[in-house]
Amino acid sequence: MSIRIGIMGYGNLGKGVELAVAAAEDLELAAVFTRRDPASLKIRTQGVPVVAAADAAAWTDKIDVLIVCGGSATDLPVQTPEYAKYFNVIDSFDTHANIPTHFANVDAAAKAAGKTAIISVGWDPGMFSLARAYANAVLPNGTDYTFWGPGVSQGHSDAIRRIKGVKNAKQYTIPVQQALDRIRGGETPELTTREKHTRLCYVVPEEGADLARIENEIKTMPNYFSDYDTTVNFITEEEFNRDHTGMAHGGFVLRSGVTGGGAKHIIEYSLKLESNPEFTTSVLVAYARAAYRLSGEGSFGAKTVLDIAPAYLLPASPEEQRSHLV
Amino acid sequence: MSIRIGIMGYGNLGKGVELAVAAAEDLELAAVFTRRDPASLKIRTQGVPVVAAADAAAWTDKIDVLIVCGGSATDLPVQTPEYAKYFNVIDSFDTHANIPTHFANVDAAAKAAGKTAIISVGWDPGMFSLARAYANAVLPNGTDYTFWGPGVSQGHSDAIRRIKGVKNAKQYTIPVQQALDRIRGGETPELTTREKHTRLCYVVPEEGADLARIENEIKTMPNYFSDYDTTVNFITEEEFNRDHTGMAHGGFVLRSGVTGGGAKHIIEYSLKLESNPEFTTSVLVAYARAAYRLSGEGSFGAKTVLDIAPAYLLPASPEEQRSHLV
Repeated sequence: MSIRIGIMGYGNLGKGVELAVAAAEDLELAAVFTRRDPASLKIRTQGVPVVAAADAAAWTDKIDVLIVCGGSATDLPVQTPEYAKYFNVIDSFDTHANIPTHFANVDAAAKAAGKTAIISVGWDPGMFSLARAYANAVLPNGTDYTFWGPGVSQGHSDAIRRIKGVKNAKQYTIPVQQALDRIRGGETPELTTREKHTRLCYVVPEEGADLARIENEIKTMPNYFSDYDTTVNFITEEEFNRDHTGMAHGGFVLRSGVTGGGAKHIIEYSLKLESNPEFTTSVLVAYARAAYRLSGEGSFGAKTVLDIAPAYLLPASPEEQRSHLV
Repeated sequence: MSIRIGIMGYGNLGKGVELAVAAAEDLELAAVFTRRDPASLKIRTQGVPVVAAADAAAWTDKIDVLIVCGGSATDLPVQTPEYAKYFNVIDSFDTHANIPTHFANVDAAAKAAGKTAIISVGWDPGMFSLARAYANAVLPNGTDYTFWGPGVSQGHSDAIRRIKGVKNAKQYTIPVQQALDRIRGGETPELTTREKHTRLCYVVPEEGADLARIENEIKTMPNYFSDYDTTVNFITEEEFNRDHTGMAHGGFVLRSGVTGGGAKHIIEYSLKLESNPEFTTSVLVAYARAAYRLSGEGSFGAKTVLDIAPAYLLPASPEEQRSHLV
């Protein structure tokens, strides 16, 4: 019998989950929930009902795991605790500073309902959290580094688009190669913000806009750009649509540490992703499998990736895992 | 109260465990067990008893976790199941093909005694197993690659030393950069043995030995060298002792995969280790912490790294882990 997956929200993430579920033999898509008019939504999978989000609770016995595909700013803080009353849930909550609060809210709801909830699943937080945790466990005396990119930062792209005279914009975060090389070479430098990442912007201006002013407003924007070496390129809408609609991303987690006898060691984990949402949802779906199994064992409440043994993520039997992966 | 660690066997691994335990605030060394005459053994830690291995069973209530530091060929297949009768145990069993059998033997002993046993801990198997498992879980449609080195292969060094006229030898396994570059570039080539690693040998010949014959015997040795591009350098004993006594090692685990919408992704995990035994024992000690906690929860029997949630490896509280590592 397949694990019955529900999708809450049919944006980039929801669509990615649909693809990842279709590719997994032990999972099946049971329903897609939406806040839009269900009749207006066309989904890819044939024969799967599209249901109003408001009616989700009625599906409590027909869904094994609900993957909540909302945004971290306003959707997930409300949705994940709410749906944990009715379903085992997975989310990709990625506002690092608010994870403890979100965890507490989801934990209370899931424990009260006897449900399993795994939050902050994806690649950062998610796979990068795992890389940091394992590296800290085996090299307790060391220094952590996380680099993001090359890839698009949605938040920085949005910030540029809010500037007067900007029609469209995309911002790429790029790790500084020299910094990576120093760490890989055994140094443990204290790096400033500027020394870790550069910011590369492609901006489509409105006709007649003051380009010098736009460039200056970007480069001096506090928090977003002023602490970085930022490059601004003005391009046409045609160039933008041709070259800058991709969703590639990735990054690097490194830990450089010393063991008891004085030997130095470097652990590096990296991701090179052609599609940020497709990879994120592939991670979400693996953790949905884990939530289903943990729920079956009566392990309720909120969890993060740090609380889940990797064996729970794989469809293969423990024997197959030991033969092929250990 | 600290977790009381016992060390079985005081070679490179045992000494590394001693250093790693000394560096951990929540662990203390309770005893070192040896098959040698205990009176002949000088250990680094003051005030810790050295005990005959034959008397280990009497320590069952004084040790929380015994780290078995024997070799995989003949020691561990006997020792780990034997000591799992009396202790929670950790070993670094690394003969991949025999892991299922070893697991079954240890599992039976540990379950019967109500003990927790974690086998095949280290970096391969160990951290590399984790890298393979997570990458397979999140990219089910993909290709795995494991490269070892640059580092010393003990087995290959031993094989050279068995050749007539060889006084001493060291063999370095070196990953082929071009192969790594192709995979990082997005290709998923089928690589032959020769295309993945080269073998670099430093040989101290006995006086008057036939160098051409030695070189030929190395390069044509089946299994060990004949399928590889092998380079043989003859050096003096002085050069050997000056340049070739290090224990550096490392390697790379890559998975290249495609998600449901056709996007390609590459996951890479790598280790660069100045001391193979020091890093291995640092991993063993982190899993000793996990074995102690799992034993306290009544989770008995044999386990591998795939069965252990990363949270169990860290001394920090779950709250601290969520704040700093997720």
